[in-house]
Amino acid sequence: MSLVVQKYGGTSVADVDRIRHVAERVARCRSAGDDLVVVVSAMAGETNRLLALARAGAEMPNDCESDVLATTGEQVTSGLLALVLQDRGVPARSFLGFQIPIVTDDGFGRARIREIDPTALRATLAAGQVAVVAGFQGVTHDGRITTLGRGGSDTTAVAIAAALGADVCEIYTDVDGVYTSDPRIVPGARKLSRIAHDEMLELASLGAKVLHIRSVEFAKRYAVPLHVRSSFHDGEGTWVVREESGMEDVSVAGVACDRDQAKLTVVGVPDRPGIAAQVFGPVAAAGIVVDMIIQNASEDGTTDLTFTVPQADYAKARRILDGLRGTIGGREIRGDLDLAKVSIVGLGMRAHAGIAARMFEVLAAEGVNVQMISTSEIKISVVVAAKYAELAVRALHDAFITES
Amino acid sequence: MSLVVQKYGGTSVADVDRIRHVAERVARCRSAGDDLVVVVSAMAGETNRLLALARAGAEMPNDCESDVLATTGEQVTSGLLALVLQDRGVPARSFLGFQIPIVTDDGFGRARIREIDPTALRATLAAGQVAVVAGFQGVTHDGRITTLGRGGSDTTAVAIAAALGADVCEIYTDVDGVYTSDPRIVPGARKLSRIAHDEMLELASLGAKVLHIRSVEFAKRYAVPLHVRSSFHDGEGTWVVREESGMEDVSVAGVACDRDQAKLTVVGVPDRPGIAAQVFGPVAAAGIVVDMIIQNASEDGTTDLTFTVPQADYAKARRILDGLRGTIGGREIRGDLDLAKVSIVGLGMRAHAGIAARMFEVLAAEGVNVQMISTSEIKISVVVAAKYAELAVRALHDAFITES
Repeated sequence: MSLVVQKYGGTSVADVDRIRHVAERVARCRSAGDDLVVVVSAMAGETNRLLALARAGAEMPNDCESDVLATTGEQVTSGLLALVLQDRGVPARSFLGFQIPIVTDDGFGRARIREIDPTALRATLAAGQVAVVAGFQGVTHDGRITTLGRGGSDTTAVAIAAALGADVCEIYTDVDGVYTSDPRIVPGARKLSRIAHDEMLELASLGAKVLHIRSVEFAKRYAVPLHVRSSFHDGEGTWVVREESGMEDVSVAGVACDRDQAKLTVVGVPDRPGIAAQVFGPVAAAGIVVDMIIQNASEDGTTDLTFTVPQADYAKARRILDGLRGTIGGREIRGDLDLAKVSIVGLGMRAHAGIAARMFEVLAAEGVNVQMISTSEIKISVVVAAKYAELAVRALHDAFITES
Repeated sequence: MSLVVQKYGGTSVADVDRIRHVAERVARCRSAGDDLVVVVSAMAGETNRLLALARAGAEMPNDCESDVLATTGEQVTSGLLALVLQDRGVPARSFLGFQIPIVTDDGFGRARIREIDPTALRATLAAGQVAVVAGFQGVTHDGRITTLGRGGSDTTAVAIAAALGADVCEIYTDVDGVYTSDPRIVPGARKLSRIAHDEMLELASLGAKVLHIRSVEFAKRYAVPLHVRSSFHDGEGTWVVREESGMEDVSVAGVACDRDQAKLTVVGVPDRPGIAAQVFGPVAAAGIVVDMIIQNASEDGTTDLTFTVPQADYAKARRILDGLRGTIGGREIRGDLDLAKVSIVGLGMRAHAGIAARMFEVLAAEGVNVQMISTSEIKISVVVAAKYAELAVRALHDAFITES
């Protein structure tokens, strides 16, 4: 008998029929003797509908009240799956974030989990019930509702698995597992049977939408066995695992593409110490996560400061820069939303020299101009014009994965 | 400066434009210096959509999980109105039932409010914010979500007004106030400027949908000044008030019609003591509210037991009766859903003799057959075939109100 946490994404609970399929799988696992906690997302499209409603109501909707709207999507799915399970004779009850509770900080819209009390969930399992948990949501210590950011239900599932010491956390989705690249872009992309936490972390933060990045962090930190698999069939998916010997033999595990990129450049700021702090202090204070940063000093004692942010934060970041012009100077602010970030990821980069050089060669051979570069121990990312994104991904997959 | 609780119904918050209108009115009251708590319903149609989803998921959806679904409607409206208010510069925050908290019993689907802690609302008002409260919902002492039954947002508003000692509770709706009858049935129906609590209680329980019955009970018990008015214009509506001298001068204040009636008859049960208890014990235990009861003893030592329930409870009640056949006997169970209850209400009935006789004369003159009769000190109700409902209402309104 195992303790299993399952998470079903939006397409797996898109309508009552799909929810019945989920209930069927849950019933099957339960009759195999497993204790089950099931974490659900909002029905596909529902979160977008709710956030659109928030934007219709206010030009700059406050994150705290937007979370009040957005969390209703998962609330509906959790109640509905509990009803469907009960209807087929499986004892079940729903849990909202505040009922467990899943306590988060007050970073509305992208809160971080601080603590999960496993008592109520344990009591429900001990009573022979399936616990159906609304994903994506939490509650602050003073009772306000929060969300964990897009894809946050993965993190709910892994964090609950960690809190309960579950035997496995299964992430059910509409794909078979983690692929070497997006199969819609690269027809030859292969499913990986295993991937190391660090590789998955890089891929998740580089635009591979299969897992929420914080869920991978939790899985790594608390050693939660994580299995990404399809809700449409029973085949094995991809296990996200601790690094194992032999994993470094493969230089590049995956090629990722992230179109959610916006670039901002402050042109001609004085080249003196403290400028970067003056810019990125207010940006961070506004809750905007800056990805790449480049600063080029020029001959005339000024410098151009360029950085990238998620597209949703572009307007906010631009307003902040406009407000700073008076203190930091700068001739103008330039922006570009027509971008993509293309990345290669692999533990093997630590062992194999020359990967970066080879990457630039491949891109140059296709005539792709690289605008920004960022590297870590196990990944290299480049920002390119959006029109080159697919070409770059295919060329890199061919060179590093198909031909390796 | 007054402390005002306002409640807006589903048609008043049907879409973002209507919510903007509500925000405008709230802003106006606030700039007049009032402290405001605003209770909102779900956007029109939303509760039905959510309950239909529950019924799609389960044949007999569990009330507890249905409440988890249903409460999301008011949650969305409360967050959205808070956003719209903030957008026009009015400080506001939303409150869900569990956040105040509004503690109820665990009668899921039709819970009763046990206690409202006014501390958080008072702090919000003291901070100069408008408190926007999701109506219809509460929380049990162990943190499960409940609903107060259809129309329950009225009760949320009046109960909060009582807890805060508000100066007035305004119920905004799509009609101008309380009418002598439904204007869609009786074109000559008049708006009442005042109505006594007891008359309103009878009308509300007899099918006049303008106020949730428990809201009137709360208003009476805690002496909350209650004003039913239109959200479309500024005119005075109807004040629901303590009984005043002169109110008895009018014999009939209103004529109500309730189509939500189902009749069940157990035919030929043995006529011995305890039968009624054996029937109505299990019915009550299932949370079904029985309205009228008639028992006719016949010559052969058996009796027919007839009673009415809301249509939603008909199937459940019928199953209970079928299950009881073994213990109580009875030749058959008969049911009828094609019914209406037509009632006349007025404090004046206490002082005026012969109202009942006149009512039956009026109905007989129109050829309307009366199936069941029920009376109280200030009302007389009759159950008739549904096809006679409008005819009966018009005839009674003509006889008792237009001609008086």
